Amino acid sequence: MNRKLHIQEVVTRDGFQIEPIFIPTAEKVKLINALSQTGVRKIEVTSFVSPKAVPQLKDAATVFENIERNEHVTYTALVPNVKGAIRAIEAGADEINLVMSVSESHNIKNVQKTTEQSLHEFKEILKMTKGTNIVVNGSLATSFGCPFEGEIPEQRLFHFLQTYVEELELDSVTFADTTGMAHPRQVENRMKKAVEMYPTLPITVHFHNTRGMGLANVIAAINAGITRFDAALGGLGGCPFAPGATGNICTEDLVHMLDAIGYETAVDVDKLIALSKQLPKLIGKDVPGQVVKAGKITDLHPMDE
Amino acid sequence: MNRKLHIQEVVTRDGFQIEPIFIPTAEKVKLINALSQTGVRKIEVTSFVSPKAVPQLKDAATVFENIERNEHVTYTALVPNVKGAIRAIEAGADEINLVMSVSESHNIKNVQKTTEQSLHEFKEILKMTKGTNIVVNGSLATSFGCPFEGEIPEQRLFHFLQTYVEELELDSVTFADTTGMAHPRQVENRMKKAVEMYPTLPITVHFHNTRGMGLANVIAAINAGITRFDAALGGLGGCPFAPGATGNICTEDLVHMLDAIGYETAVDVDKLIALSKQLPKLIGKDVPGQVVKAGKITDLHPMDE
Repeated sequence: MNRKLHIQEVVTRDGFQIEPIFIPTAEKVKLINALSQTGVRKIEVTSFVSPKAVPQLKDAATVFENIERNEHVTYTALVPNVKGAIRAIEAGADEINLVMSVSESHNIKNVQKTTEQSLHEFKEILKMTKGTNIVVNGSLATSFGCPFEGEIPEQRLFHFLQTYVEELELDSVTFADTTGMAHPRQVENRMKKAVEMYPTLPITVHFHNTRGMGLANVIAAINAGITRFDAALGGLGGCPFAPGATGNICTEDLVHMLDAIGYETAVDVDKLIALSKQLPKLIGKDVPGQVVKAGKITDLHPMDE
Repeated sequence: MNRKLHIQEVVTRDGFQIEPIFIPTAEKVKLINALSQTGVRKIEVTSFVSPKAVPQLKDAATVFENIERNEHVTYTALVPNVKGAIRAIEAGADEINLVMSVSESHNIKNVQKTTEQSLHEFKEILKMTKGTNIVVNGSLATSFGCPFEGEIPEQRLFHFLQTYVEELELDSVTFADTTGMAHPRQVENRMKKAVEMYPTLPITVHFHNTRGMGLANVIAAINAGITRFDAALGGLGGCPFAPGATGNICTEDLVHMLDAIGYETAVDVDKLIALSKQLPKLIGKDVPGQVVKAGKITDLHPMDE
């Protein structure tokens, strides 16, 4: 109960990348600046990927250039390859977040590389970051399940975890439930093992709420000793294989639950709710988040309402 | 893990009562008959309340008259007062589900009675059911929080639990999170105490997903030893104080999660999904359930999709 939990915001990357419209650069910058004042510990600003593949984030460098940084916040960028890493480093990212899928087929589909090719690129990237103060996080996408292959065998997951930690010597690792396939027992079992393997490794879990289990998975991860959580304002995000499904776990719903339980996050849920209420006019539709519609459990009503 | 979990369907009562349109009686009967073949253990068919207050369920007796009963399913009816109990007994309900809010103000608002008046009515009802084989369940609405009063003190909750069990000698009890204010730690603490107080009492939890914590609360309740869960197909239902918010926990999302974890429910999730897909044309809008949009975690995709 006394553990401090870190909330890490991914809406401008994982959320905006799947929206059919391009969110204007100035709006992205404005939102990131506002999120910087909410108490979140990390913001995944954007990703440095092909602007043809993800035109929504083609302004990655410009966004980085224009945000006002809060010294208590880490500004990270998703990077799948050497080219992206060069751009991210040039843009002044505090952290680069390398991403590879544990599922071979998903990695090929997502970044057009085998896992071997991805790991080779990561080694090239690490040559560039060595000696700098750029933090390197490694994300293991499809850590729990893959939309093509189903459940990912534990052995394969922990093999790549070991590669990340022992061979690549990454600073920290994220287990991502990329398409919302994790369930609470699986999360608790896998995260307990990961924490046992590397007790001092900073581990993030990145859940999607695709099948309604997002916050249940958070509780399972906390029970396993995890303290870092990715989430997206409004619950934006999603998965091309589940049209209409909800996306990432919703930051304000997450913080609202953790506040209710009594965990310390240092995040101001009211600021998040206020920001989330601005999303519909930005993306042109309603958001999946619940608290923004229902109010907090501490918002009482007059009896004659 | 070896415990069997009971799934109890409430969509035609808790779901339909809040819809702005009247669902035709024949459609209600058809849906109940189909739900009777899914493996759910109990169906809350309707409620016997004032047709002026809840016109959506004015056909309560006709629905009961026309359903085809499955001998493995308990057909229950919500009842707030003597008048309702008489109608429910006449209609041939297997069980009557007495409802009183633990919150004084919510009980007054919901059934226009003080808790003392409700308990008095319940005693009159029990005189009618004594010696029959009608099961009497007691629901404690707002067991966790009240939209007017906030968190309900534990002492008050357990006082009424004791009244239900020791003074009224009810057969079973439901703790209802009527407006979706429960959080996982509170659920685990309260349900552990309830199970300790009455280890052989059949206890149901009735959660709403109003603030996204529904399935997390289910896991918390399972950890506390609870085995009976109310849920509504498609996640219908809701709360007049949270317009736009989601309603009851969604039956197919619940069963999907329990299946993934490996719990035995005896419920056929594919049948539920098929039925849930018919709801939008019945109620004229999309449903909050997630699995119906995202598919099951076991539904794999071809790579060239």
